[in-house]
Amino acid sequence: MDYLTGVRRKETLEISELMEKAEPGQKVKVNGAIHTIRHMGTVAFVILRKREGLLQGVYEEGIAQFRLKDVKEAAAVEIEGVLEENQKAPNGIEIRMEKLKILSEPAADRMPLAIAKWKLNTSLEAKLNYRSISLRNVRERAKFRIQEGLTRAFRDFLYGQGFTEIHTPKIGAKGAEGGANIFKLDYFHRPAVLAQSPQFYKQMMVGVFDRVFETAPVFRAEKHNTKRHLNEYTSLDFEMGYIDGFEDIMAMETGYLQYAMELLAKDYYRELKILDITLPEVKQIPAVKFGEIKEAVSEKYGHKMRNPFDLEPEEEQLIGRYAKEEWGSDFVFVTHYPSKKRPFYAMDDPEDTRYTLSFDLLLRGMEITTGGQRIHDYHALTEKIAARGMTEEGMEDYLDTFKHGMPPHGGLGIGLERLTMKLVGEDNVRETTLFPRDLSRLEP
Amino acid sequence: MDYLTGVRRKETLEISELMEKAEPGQKVKVNGAIHTIRHMGTVAFVILRKREGLLQGVYEEGIAQFRLKDVKEAAAVEIEGVLEENQKAPNGIEIRMEKLKILSEPAADRMPLAIAKWKLNTSLEAKLNYRSISLRNVRERAKFRIQEGLTRAFRDFLYGQGFTEIHTPKIGAKGAEGGANIFKLDYFHRPAVLAQSPQFYKQMMVGVFDRVFETAPVFRAEKHNTKRHLNEYTSLDFEMGYIDGFEDIMAMETGYLQYAMELLAKDYYRELKILDITLPEVKQIPAVKFGEIKEAVSEKYGHKMRNPFDLEPEEEQLIGRYAKEEWGSDFVFVTHYPSKKRPFYAMDDPEDTRYTLSFDLLLRGMEITTGGQRIHDYHALTEKIAARGMTEEGMEDYLDTFKHGMPPHGGLGIGLERLTMKLVGEDNVRETTLFPRDLSRLEP
Repeated sequence: MDYLTGVRRKETLEISELMEKAEPGQKVKVNGAIHTIRHMGTVAFVILRKREGLLQGVYEEGIAQFRLKDVKEAAAVEIEGVLEENQKAPNGIEIRMEKLKILSEPAADRMPLAIAKWKLNTSLEAKLNYRSISLRNVRERAKFRIQEGLTRAFRDFLYGQGFTEIHTPKIGAKGAEGGANIFKLDYFHRPAVLAQSPQFYKQMMVGVFDRVFETAPVFRAEKHNTKRHLNEYTSLDFEMGYIDGFEDIMAMETGYLQYAMELLAKDYYRELKILDITLPEVKQIPAVKFGEIKEAVSEKYGHKMRNPFDLEPEEEQLIGRYAKEEWGSDFVFVTHYPSKKRPFYAMDDPEDTRYTLSFDLLLRGMEITTGGQRIHDYHALTEKIAARGMTEEGMEDYLDTFKHGMPPHGGLGIGLERLTMKLVGEDNVRETTLFPRDLSRLEP
Repeated sequence: MDYLTGVRRKETLEISELMEKAEPGQKVKVNGAIHTIRHMGTVAFVILRKREGLLQGVYEEGIAQFRLKDVKEAAAVEIEGVLEENQKAPNGIEIRMEKLKILSEPAADRMPLAIAKWKLNTSLEAKLNYRSISLRNVRERAKFRIQEGLTRAFRDFLYGQGFTEIHTPKIGAKGAEGGANIFKLDYFHRPAVLAQSPQFYKQMMVGVFDRVFETAPVFRAEKHNTKRHLNEYTSLDFEMGYIDGFEDIMAMETGYLQYAMELLAKDYYRELKILDITLPEVKQIPAVKFGEIKEAVSEKYGHKMRNPFDLEPEEEQLIGRYAKEEWGSDFVFVTHYPSKKRPFYAMDDPEDTRYTLSFDLLLRGMEITTGGQRIHDYHALTEKIAARGMTEEGMEDYLDTFKHGMPPHGGLGIGLERLTMKLVGEDNVRETTLFPRDLSRLEP
């Protein structure tokens, strides 16, 4: 019998440890993957890929006690050598190599993609086909570190605001929003569906925890094949009770974005630098009514308004442009969406019931969030269901919750991959999805 | 156009704010749900349910400017009154009520469950059927706050250890472990499955980020109807590269548990008190070989060993008992599981290839984690696949990753609901699952 007593300190150092804790001239040990080898005549640069970035090893015959030709690109190795300063090397440091131990070797002679190039010069298709290889490119990988920061900020901010994290089931008997875009499966000989959203569950849990959030996958069987649709994506959802109005939801999201931009600037500066990203300003985010902004962009850009109750992708882009030009903002809340375009549980605006107390948040002209106040009164809810000609079937548990009291509440859902995409300046949501699922892609 | 500038401070106070920032005698405003009303002759106690616990309001005629009979149980209300100290009240404070505003009223006259009782005196079936109501009970709710703490600690600890959070797809073309226990669905006229585990993906991402984790649902179509099986559960997964052996994985898990117990003691003390939980000691966790502990419990407890290559639930219980009696530990790592019982990607022990470099972690006699070192060499992996008579079909992307180099690595998966269950002392995993999915339960 042995005892485990916690994480053991390793002899091998990470890049930040080399920079902060080690001194030039010191013998150090590091590990990593051979990213590339550059032969420069009498010396060679062996570039290691480590999780915090690239690290330069200098190979010089006579000093190194191993043969360079024994070292393959893509091998995992451990290196011993002397730490030195070199302003031309990544992070200003390099290691004059003495010993090298091979931990693992690749079986293939060559890589399918030139991942060591600064920009991965290949098609999106190739990137996705070789996902576990293409992401070894430092820039490709950095996007998903930014994505981590966005998710992490969401949770940390909401914990601080008294929210409880929940895990709601993804297999259920009925979808929250209804409609045809639901994946169906056989659940022990019973018909079941995959959750389009945690909507019903998170509302039900407002009656328990007041404020809840979830960061989990959602599934949409939509037959859209566009640059901004996925059939499975990560939804950052929250729902909060005791609100004074749907403005509280927008205020909470603004607070989240402020927190997120701070966290990115502080803990993800390496990745921001790699991707050359300037974070958007979020001190204040303009909010403007659906009807008003439609008219404003129609007037300013001469865009013909086809349907006063709908917002086309082109109009979203123009609203983004308008917000930037008029208010200097990358973000803009569009409020009071038409009731017809919102699910039954959306609260109608008492001042004009053709519209709802709801909003979308656009970032650089693309919707990244849908949210709003929900109906909390049981009778109001069942009346709206009836008025829409819907059936209550399959919603009994949801509706029962309201029978037994629910505070005024509202919430939102943020598409994580879209938010990442707009933030890092990509134009296809697949670029910021680890393993995208779309109409044609089910692998890898 | 208006500007949103972040979270606005509310006039209404939470319980911790009443205790830390307000003074007795001060006028305060709070909101919450009417948990119960207790009539005591000339006064009445109106108990509010708030997210941080219960808050007592005192109703006295002449002081209160509203009629108590207008206030229904389960209503959401806002109360104004004077903060007072009362050692008999929850948290030692109460509010002498002056004004009460009804925010929302229940439609039903009575609750289906007596949630205001300290212990919800009803069957598991009833609890699950009325999930959004039963969780309003303070003790029921507290279990899921503990669950949040466990998830939160997992992420926070791993961020600190250089792990990157990933989101892997739940819909795929093939399961990671194979076998019959996979949910199948139709994906735009192509056969697809729900992920049993993020195993393949997290390994593939070790080649990118070195260390990765995911906290997400997994799906198992197992026809087990036991107290410890679910068909959908939350898996806390991590995978890490550049390990010296599978002991590094156990050390990392021990570090996590140490971090988690500290976080629970610090930030979830209210819930620990409500549930009367003493946290297990995790300074050191014993690790013992599969073969050895089987013999030891067989000898000590006279348990007949039926199969030397399998571990029955009853044996797990005895191992738990043994660890407690012999080493004073609620946790115990059982290492070197038989190769036959582990998936193909598990690394065999070079000293005895009938066993693997793997482990389970038991808490109080139940398996809550499975982990170990994985094969990182492409040829070793394909040879093992062949030796098992398996096909490489559908694993091309996974195997390609190894062709192009992978560091020595390993990882684990923790069943969140099971860990919570054993920690809070429940004996059915459904008690610590928000909305369980099992053979017979698909709703709510």
